[in-house]
Amino acid sequence: MSTEIEKQIEEQGGIVRTLKADKSATEVAKKEAIEKLLALKLAYKEATGKDYAAPGARQQKPKQEKPKKEEKKQQQQPKKEDGKKQSKLGIETSKDENYSEWYSQVITKAEMIEYYDVSGCYVLRPWSYAVWESIQAWFDKGIKKLGVKNCYFPMFVSHAALEREKTHIADFAPEVAWVTRAGSSEMAEPIAIRPTSETVMYPSYKKWVQSHRDLPIKLNQWCNVVRWEFKHPTPFLRTREFLWQEGHTAFSNAKDAEAEVFQILDLYAGIYTDLLAIPVVKGRKSEKEKFAGGDFTTTVEAYVPCNGRGIQGATSHHLGQNFSKMFDISFEEPTSGEKAFAWQNSWGLSTRTIGAMIMIHGDDNGLVLPPRVASIQTIVIPVGITAQTSDEQKAKLTETVETITARLVDAGVRAESDLRDNYSPGWKFNHWELKGVPIRFELGPKDLAADQVTAVIRFNGQKKALPLARLADEVPALLDDIHKQMYNKVLAARDAHLKKTTCIEEFKRMLDDKCIILAPFCGLPDCEEEIKKASTREDGEGAQMGAKTLCIPLEQPDEPLPAKCLYPTCTHAPKFFALFGRSY
Amino acid sequence: MSTEIEKQIEEQGGIVRTLKADKSATEVAKKEAIEKLLALKLAYKEATGKDYAAPGARQQKPKQEKPKKEEKKQQQQPKKEDGKKQSKLGIETSKDENYSEWYSQVITKAEMIEYYDVSGCYVLRPWSYAVWESIQAWFDKGIKKLGVKNCYFPMFVSHAALEREKTHIADFAPEVAWVTRAGSSEMAEPIAIRPTSETVMYPSYKKWVQSHRDLPIKLNQWCNVVRWEFKHPTPFLRTREFLWQEGHTAFSNAKDAEAEVFQILDLYAGIYTDLLAIPVVKGRKSEKEKFAGGDFTTTVEAYVPCNGRGIQGATSHHLGQNFSKMFDISFEEPTSGEKAFAWQNSWGLSTRTIGAMIMIHGDDNGLVLPPRVASIQTIVIPVGITAQTSDEQKAKLTETVETITARLVDAGVRAESDLRDNYSPGWKFNHWELKGVPIRFELGPKDLAADQVTAVIRFNGQKKALPLARLADEVPALLDDIHKQMYNKVLAARDAHLKKTTCIEEFKRMLDDKCIILAPFCGLPDCEEEIKKASTREDGEGAQMGAKTLCIPLEQPDEPLPAKCLYPTCTHAPKFFALFGRSY
Repeated sequence: MSTEIEKQIEEQGGIVRTLKADKSATEVAKKEAIEKLLALKLAYKEATGKDYAAPGARQQKPKQEKPKKEEKKQQQQPKKEDGKKQSKLGIETSKDENYSEWYSQVITKAEMIEYYDVSGCYVLRPWSYAVWESIQAWFDKGIKKLGVKNCYFPMFVSHAALEREKTHIADFAPEVAWVTRAGSSEMAEPIAIRPTSETVMYPSYKKWVQSHRDLPIKLNQWCNVVRWEFKHPTPFLRTREFLWQEGHTAFSNAKDAEAEVFQILDLYAGIYTDLLAIPVVKGRKSEKEKFAGGDFTTTVEAYVPCNGRGIQGATSHHLGQNFSKMFDISFEEPTSGEKAFAWQNSWGLSTRTIGAMIMIHGDDNGLVLPPRVASIQTIVIPVGITAQTSDEQKAKLTETVETITARLVDAGVRAESDLRDNYSPGWKFNHWELKGVPIRFELGPKDLAADQVTAVIRFNGQKKALPLARLADEVPALLDDIHKQMYNKVLAARDAHLKKTTCIEEFKRMLDDKCIILAPFCGLPDCEEEIKKASTREDGEGAQMGAKTLCIPLEQPDEPLPAKCLYPTCTHAPKFFALFGRSY
Repeated sequence: MSTEIEKQIEEQGGIVRTLKADKSATEVAKKEAIEKLLALKLAYKEATGKDYAAPGARQQKPKQEKPKKEEKKQQQQPKKEDGKKQSKLGIETSKDENYSEWYSQVITKAEMIEYYDVSGCYVLRPWSYAVWESIQAWFDKGIKKLGVKNCYFPMFVSHAALEREKTHIADFAPEVAWVTRAGSSEMAEPIAIRPTSETVMYPSYKKWVQSHRDLPIKLNQWCNVVRWEFKHPTPFLRTREFLWQEGHTAFSNAKDAEAEVFQILDLYAGIYTDLLAIPVVKGRKSEKEKFAGGDFTTTVEAYVPCNGRGIQGATSHHLGQNFSKMFDISFEEPTSGEKAFAWQNSWGLSTRTIGAMIMIHGDDNGLVLPPRVASIQTIVIPVGITAQTSDEQKAKLTETVETITARLVDAGVRAESDLRDNYSPGWKFNHWELKGVPIRFELGPKDLAADQVTAVIRFNGQKKALPLARLADEVPALLDDIHKQMYNKVLAARDAHLKKTTCIEEFKRMLDDKCIILAPFCGLPDCEEEIKKASTREDGEGAQMGAKTLCIPLEQPDEPLPAKCLYPTCTHAPKFFALFGRSY
């Protein structure tokens, strides 16, 4: 069964050896080749349950291996007698020091993600799924106002339908998962799992459209899709199965279709700015980065301050008539009586949003949730109970905690109390901080005496006393204020790193300073490739990926376009300022 | 690729031939064998795109075939010049005459379902998906009140995890779809698609439960599952992919777990009675019919008047400690300090609900939607416009239609108007009747003059005039009344066919009279099998499946149990009245 991967590993091993021996080979090329080899070995291990051993090595020294790092680590971990691991509560590294370790600790310790035994697949625990539910509710309402209706198409795609649109499928084919067996029967024709649903839906659209009166069709589905990538997976950001919504609309004319692309883009921007407290740049994708098979792609792009990378937030595509011609979604033009093809859009937003939120807002104490998507916005904790506290005082404290919580819930705040008696207040502070709850209320005997509660703001650590009598007014206002401050903090960081240049050397320095950069650009794929190559850093340890266009901002700088494209030897005139950056 | 199926077809062909030659073979046995053969041939055609031909026949007479029925039919259908089919608007058969043809016409012509090119998979169009959204919203609110949280687990299951619980997997293994290839790489180990998520979720539960304080865990997910059945598929009722919710909970003690089983069962009953206007019987499944690997299964069972069959509505299972022992979901008993295993439940409700609703309420004019799940509850249509109608009158009519619609929407009614000028009022009546909209409002010049609107009730065809001034009060009340009347109509039909007997001969006659039957029953699987055999009708044309227990009703008849079990030669004492019936 594993012979196919074994062959690939041996081939890739050969490529790595050749590159290592070749003095003219770049560090980046070597790094990429090694990464691919490691990914293949990982796939082998997934599939066989054991590490790959080279053919010659397989019979040799089977018992001389050192204990693996993983085993060592496990031995050092405190264990319960039943073998279950106990992990420490807090984050054990800083975001600046070891970003990827920080990310993986935050998502697990804040109970967003549980790891799973199929590589590239992760469990979305209630704490992260609730963020998705907030996004769903908001967006679903928005698209229904535009007349979009929800539906559900099958997850399986026949081979024939999948391959209908060639440009489109060329993009997805290497990542398609195929079902070939049911029970113990081999299927005669393998069936694909949708990587996206253009080819699933459009044969139905063909059936439904007979007259211009059957248009527009505006459908959306909330579903899972599968893209079996072989690059290193990252929870939320690159996973083999993910959740998303995909909207697919068809119009009788280009104008209406194009207008909708931007209406949807505005909703996507709203998810980031109004829910997740993240500023985005709206723009078009370059020719090189657009959706295959479509006419143009629009996008919202966010900035990740800690590593200076851009991250694509969601995309809204105008497909033009490319798919309608392939799938014969056509009607009779009412005036001319001629056959006309529909104008189509597709647009999608995935659980990647949650990854962006974690990366952008999280800090050394863990997750920081923007208030509007936090499933608990305020946690109320009793404090200051000592051996001297009387039972009566304790009862009064508990009662007040419960009253406050109920009052907040009545005021529309998602509030809960933590009255567990087997954890100390300190432990609870850490726990809810780690989980990113926007406001912590501490209520002790002194607060009680002063008819107040001490509010601690998660994102900036500020403390303030709030009078009990005014909680129902003040907390909703405070949550709104936190949202704005969180947004402004990220906006300031983004704007401090949003530069403009016409010089490729300055451009490269800016990239290394964690900037995203506006530069004049001709828009051509070859030139974009050159800029990527030029900005790839190849010096061993500090190797860095090259920059690509994040988008061509809809709002262009208020100044004339320079005469030359960013890339020095490019002979084409620039068409616009494009936003470049290293990117997820 | 198709050799495996070919082999199966040849084997099954041999079985059919043997049975046909064997005079002692029952008609039912022959029928079943032939059905299996046909299913295999269907699978072959799906997989290869061509009809199966026996090895000897393959070279012979390739050109002598008669034109297939299908082709003939297509030739008779009216066609547009571009080859798209045009279908007639109304249902072309009656529910009593040809039930299965009726069903398939209703679901397509009412725009609930679109057929799809992967067998057993169907498109849920907005008109049916909206029913699902109503059910989701209602049930989601209900479980959240019980403290259940939503989450999302991967759709893929590793071979090892899937096979962990033997009794459980024995039930599902023949229907599991396997992914064996990604892009062009064979996977070393095939990965299954979840048929249900016990084996997906419980390894995580093991990690999360370390102390009794980590319990209860109450999680739910709304997702798709795949069961690759080879029986004849039916939209909503038996499909290879379907949507459902699956709740999975774990408790530190049996009492809390068992209590929850029945809380969920009540919610399931509420979906039928309070949303879908369908009465159900709550009960336990017999030993033979319960969920494999669980301790006991509870169910809500509905009755389909037109064919007298029972249909399982949703099931809530108490898994006991079976899965927790297999997956080691354990904790230290706080008092004894001993290792204890969690008590678990799982519960699920699927899009099958929509199929039950269609079958039970639909009539010869098409779909009949219960008001609370109808995405349009009232459709407002202008009527009575003739050549004599003045432009002013027409404008007034249109304006009033719009005002009425807006007023209803303000009153919380899901109302829409149909002002299309290219369809006649008659066409619109048929269209919205076919789609099952609960109330049609007709507004003509005479209505206008009398300050009223004519309401036509879909489910009973009654007409009544409603004064325009009181619509905001009367329509919500009318919708409630329709709900109750629809419920009572089905209840009356059900109760007229809900019989009781202690005599197997009478039992069989009752079954043929489309009844479901309460009868004393020992509860043993062998005895249930005997009753099924005894009630199987084997006489050619009128062949009928045997009866099984639908459930053991929670509410038992108010009379002493007879001394003998229904099955005459059964020597065990009856334990309860069980509800028997032919069933979906």
